[in-house]
Amino acid sequence: MGHFITFEGPEGSGKTTVISKVHEQLAKTYDTMATREPGGIAISESIRKILLAEGNDMDPRTEALLFAAARRQHLIEKVLPALETGRVVLCDRFVDSSIAYQGFARGIGTEEVMNINRFAIEDHMPDLTIYLKLDPAVGLHRIESNKRDHNRLDTEKISFHKDVVLGYNELSENYPNRIKIVDADQSPEKVTRDVMKIINQYLEQGVDHS
Amino acid sequence: MGHFITFEGPEGSGKTTVISKVHEQLAKTYDTMATREPGGIAISESIRKILLAEGNDMDPRTEALLFAAARRQHLIEKVLPALETGRVVLCDRFVDSSIAYQGFARGIGTEEVMNINRFAIEDHMPDLTIYLKLDPAVGLHRIESNKRDHNRLDTEKISFHKDVVLGYNELSENYPNRIKIVDADQSPEKVTRDVMKIINQYLEQGVDHS
Repeated sequence: MGHFITFEGPEGSGKTTVISKVHEQLAKTYDTMATREPGGIAISESIRKILLAEGNDMDPRTEALLFAAARRQHLIEKVLPALETGRVVLCDRFVDSSIAYQGFARGIGTEEVMNINRFAIEDHMPDLTIYLKLDPAVGLHRIESNKRDHNRLDTEKISFHKDVVLGYNELSENYPNRIKIVDADQSPEKVTRDVMKIINQYLEQGVDHS
Repeated sequence: MGHFITFEGPEGSGKTTVISKVHEQLAKTYDTMATREPGGIAISESIRKILLAEGNDMDPRTEALLFAAARRQHLIEKVLPALETGRVVLCDRFVDSSIAYQGFARGIGTEEVMNINRFAIEDHMPDLTIYLKLDPAVGLHRIESNKRDHNRLDTEKISFHKDVVLGYNELSENYPNRIKIVDADQSPEKVTRDVMKIINQYLEQGVDHS
C-alpha cells in the first residue's frame, strides 16, 4: 500500500500552490499523484456540477450527502487504485473539509457528518493530513485580491469562514497524530519547506496512529 | 400536521396503479398529494439523472448516498410543506426501498444504509407504510410483458429481485406497526380495496408506534 496524504485549510490558505510544489519535489523520489475531488471521475464531476450551481436552494444535509457521494466514487476509482500500486497520493481536501464546513460551520454537527463520511470512505482515512492554518480574514483578503475560482462557497460571509477555521482547529486538537498544523501566513516557499519536512518525516518513520 | 403514507414493494408490484386509485378515493375526503422522488424538485431530478444513467460504473455506496441526497431535498421542498398544511401525502417509495435494495440486496448492510437515511430524514419517518407483497418471479414477469419504465435497476437478475423481497419481508417483520402487508397478487381493484381499508383505519384511529 502507498501513502494517503490530504491537505486541508480555509479558502485562501494556498493549498493549490503548496500541493503543486510538494508534488514536484516528492515526484523526484516517489511515484506521486496529486488529486482533488471530483478529479475527472465522471460520476463525481456530475455531482460537483449540482453542488456548484449558483442560486439553487440546497439543504445543508443534501449538500453533505452529495459531497460524501462524490468523495466515495473518487476514492474508489482514483485514490484506492493508486494506493494499491504503492503511490503517494496527495489529495486537496477530504473528510475534514466536510466536518469543518458542513458539520461545524453549517451547524449540522460534526459527529453526524463524520458518520456519513465513514459510510463513504469505510476504513480509508488519510495516513497524514496537512492543515494549512490561517486567520480567516487573511484568507478572505487573499481571495478578494485574486478573484479566480469564485463560486457559491466563496460568497459566504466572514463569520462562516471563522467557523470553518474553528472547526479545523477542533479537528487538529482531536487528531493531533494524524493532522499536522503548518502556519500558512508565510511565503509559499516557506510553507512548502515546512510541509516537506513533515511529509519526509512521515515517509521515513510513519505516523503514530495511537 | 398531516399524514405521511409511503408505498413499498418490488418491481412490478403495481404501486403506481394502486397509488393512483387510492389518491382518487382519498381526495374525496382529504386534501391529498401523491408524489415520488425526485418529484419535480430540481436538485433531486438532477441527482436522479446521475442515478439512472445506464452504463456508468457506480459504486453501491455512492448510489445509496445519492438516493439519500435526493430523498432529503424532496422531503424538505415537497413532503414537509404539504404535511405542515395538514395534507395526506402518499409517497411512492421512501427509506424502506433503500434498505431493501441497497442495504439488503446490494449487500451494504441494512443498519449502515438506515444510518445515512436517518441523517437524510431526521425524525420524519412515515406514519404508515403499505408493503405490496409479491413473489419476485411474478413481478418480473409483469415487467417483461409491460416494457415501460425500463431502466438500470430493471436489468438486475432474478436473484437480486428475490433479495429485495427478502429485505422487505425482514423490514415488515421488524416494524409490524408501521408497515402493513397487502397481497399484490390480486386484481388492482382488490389490492386498492385492501389498501383503502388499512388507510381508513389508520386515519380514523392512528397507528400504534409502540
